Amino acid sequence: MSDIIQPRVLKGFRDFLPAAESKRKALVSLLETTFAAFGFVPIDTPVLEYAEILLGKGGGETDKQVYRFRDNGDRDVAMRFDLTVPFARFMAEHVEELYLPFRRYHIAKVWRGENTQRGRYREFMQCDFDIVGTDSVLADTDIILTIDAAMRALDVGAFSVRVNHRGIFNTFLARRGLAGRSAEILRTVDKLEKAGHETTLASLAEIAGSDTASGIMEFIVPERDSRSTLAKLETLCGGGSEHVDRLAGILSACGAGGVEVVLDPSITRGLDYYTGVVFETTLSAMPGIGSVCSGGRYDELASLYTTRRLPGVGASVGLDRLMAATEGRASLATAETVDALVLFVDAAGIPRYQDMAARLRASGLRVEIYPEQRKPAQQFQYAERKGIRYAVIVGTGDPERGTISVRNLADRTTIEFSGIGAVAEYLASRRQR
Amino acid sequence: MSDIIQPRVLKGFRDFLPAAESKRKALVSLLETTFAAFGFVPIDTPVLEYAEILLGKGGGETDKQVYRFRDNGDRDVAMRFDLTVPFARFMAEHVEELYLPFRRYHIAKVWRGENTQRGRYREFMQCDFDIVGTDSVLADTDIILTIDAAMRALDVGAFSVRVNHRGIFNTFLARRGLAGRSAEILRTVDKLEKAGHETTLASLAEIAGSDTASGIMEFIVPERDSRSTLAKLETLCGGGSEHVDRLAGILSACGAGGVEVVLDPSITRGLDYYTGVVFETTLSAMPGIGSVCSGGRYDELASLYTTRRLPGVGASVGLDRLMAATEGRASLATAETVDALVLFVDAAGIPRYQDMAARLRASGLRVEIYPEQRKPAQQFQYAERKGIRYAVIVGTGDPERGTISVRNLADRTTIEFSGIGAVAEYLASRRQR
Repeated sequence: MSDIIQPRVLKGFRDFLPAAESKRKALVSLLETTFAAFGFVPIDTPVLEYAEILLGKGGGETDKQVYRFRDNGDRDVAMRFDLTVPFARFMAEHVEELYLPFRRYHIAKVWRGENTQRGRYREFMQCDFDIVGTDSVLADTDIILTIDAAMRALDVGAFSVRVNHRGIFNTFLARRGLAGRSAEILRTVDKLEKAGHETTLASLAEIAGSDTASGIMEFIVPERDSRSTLAKLETLCGGGSEHVDRLAGILSACGAGGVEVVLDPSITRGLDYYTGVVFETTLSAMPGIGSVCSGGRYDELASLYTTRRLPGVGASVGLDRLMAATEGRASLATAETVDALVLFVDAAGIPRYQDMAARLRASGLRVEIYPEQRKPAQQFQYAERKGIRYAVIVGTGDPERGTISVRNLADRTTIEFSGIGAVAEYLASRRQR
Repeated sequence: MSDIIQPRVLKGFRDFLPAAESKRKALVSLLETTFAAFGFVPIDTPVLEYAEILLGKGGGETDKQVYRFRDNGDRDVAMRFDLTVPFARFMAEHVEELYLPFRRYHIAKVWRGENTQRGRYREFMQCDFDIVGTDSVLADTDIILTIDAAMRALDVGAFSVRVNHRGIFNTFLARRGLAGRSAEILRTVDKLEKAGHETTLASLAEIAGSDTASGIMEFIVPERDSRSTLAKLETLCGGGSEHVDRLAGILSACGAGGVEVVLDPSITRGLDYYTGVVFETTLSAMPGIGSVCSGGRYDELASLYTTRRLPGVGASVGLDRLMAATEGRASLATAETVDALVLFVDAAGIPRYQDMAARLRASGLRVEIYPEQRKPAQQFQYAERKGIRYAVIVGTGDPERGTISVRNLADRTTIEFSGIGAVAEYLASRRQR
């Protein structure tokens, strides 16, 4: 007994049991179908990379959260902490073998030694999609249309995509002599929803003085519609600019694509990385979980690894948040279970059970045979625990014409069928519910 | 320039570019559909675990190949080197929340510090499926039927599943007083195909003397059919036994399930872990790549972590080998590309391009718009490099009735259509090819 090792996982790490893992797979599959519909193609990169590649020559601040170690060949290596840095390295390395613009998606795990007290996981999945190698307004729009299509595919209910342009905010700040503090101010505004109006105003006053702070707070309030908001931004920035035109172009192209986005000047995204349009996606029924899909345009994806300019635009889907938001959605429910259990009555019936299972599978159903001779009640219990809704009881007669019983394990009723075809049809019709 | 970091991956690690990654995803998806059809459900476990969990209390031999380090909290951790050990830990930890028999699949990356000179990768994907918590012959059969269905779904051409039973071989050896050297002998026989007849005979002679070595070599030769082979084994083992009956039962149940397996007494699988039936799958057209799906029955999955007995049977699919074997297969080809590129003629056309793309997507097609105004030749070149076969040129007229041209980029012919519906129908019909 003392030799038994206590089975446990590391803090911040999780097992995914079948119900959760099935749902995650169904969600990822709907996202992949959406990405493919918009011309995105998948890539994959190694989990381990040279630490210098992932962290830059300095290493620095990020370091503490990174799983970094010396491998058996004494190389300084690290596990990836996001999918953006590996993508930058990937593009710098492979751009000659590829084509531009390059639109890729990448759904994979990343690792960060986060403080687990804040409910953060140390291993989690990221889902990024980007279009690089073009400055086109259509690329910005395509990312937004893809977000819209993905949210509809996931059946998340009402949602809104809110957009803004970093350049407009920067113009506004520059006119007030605050160009040098732009990053700091953008980060402060980014926290508005969490921090609240008063705290944000106070923080901004500390940075820029109370008059300018009030001006910033006025600047970031959306008007009654995007057109009015755009007009206000134009006025407060002292007239039209390429950034205002760009944003107007995105709003109009999204509209042509059938998607109404909301211009919200308080959206800034904290990262210094973004230089153009930025966006967030919130669910009307669950504003508290924050943005479920965010991103923006950047000037340089891969300047750490290449002198080649690679501008782009992209977004990241919050899979964990969407897992929570789609709890119980019909779009994901059918993935979660097996359609029917064929009952094991006696060993002599095995060939008939196998024949039944094979024919039901040929109709696209997911079917298993209970592998041992047990009381029906025990077999029903197994099915219920696994979430299987129907048990098929094969009689001893001719399977083509003999009677086959199908028991609904939810309401405990039984229906009799003549022939396998009728059973397959019934089970397939129930699957759609 | 000197600040640029050379983009590169670690030796033994790989990037997957879109063509390879699309194919890998398509292959995995076909496997998942097959597993689901047989009632298998997915799970996932952490990439990092306590080293003690993965390596046992000793650590020992495996150690050198394992990525093992101290994390920032000074825990002794390691990256998983297979999916079997995490599954054992998973079952010991969660068996009370689950149900038995439990049939799961797990497709995920594992890491080993292999010698890359032998063409081995240090990061690769494993694909395991198992049924645990039952001794049933139907479970053995279900694993074999699943292998058969998976190979057919993958369209690998002719293949054969060869089976044997460890217990029969052990009975044979015990009768010759070699029970104590069974593991050694099984490992030697396992290498027969690589080592050849003469070398194997010599190795066996060293272990067991030349007379017995000849006896073993006779024992492992298959007869003209499985029934005759089984009869030979029975005779050489001194009559019937539960193991012979078991193997006969598996052969018969596979037959009832429509699958002819081959009894091959030379199949032993090197691992000490297996105790019952063992199997391998070879492709008729590519015998040189070895087994593409192997496994067997074991008595104890999780004895390191629990006193609960968890017997089971399972198999592992060789994804890298199957990637090579399915090169150019139609079943995987459609996954590899986007169906059509909508040409960008001028900025005024953007709303029409978007409308066209949205309607084609609504027909289930994968469509992208070229995002910039460039010469058609450049846009065609982009499509060709990405593997897109059709370019759609939208005229300036009414999209419902106006003319739309579709250019086949392979043969450089152009067909004119009236209305989007006709274009969608044509592209969908071409996709099936």
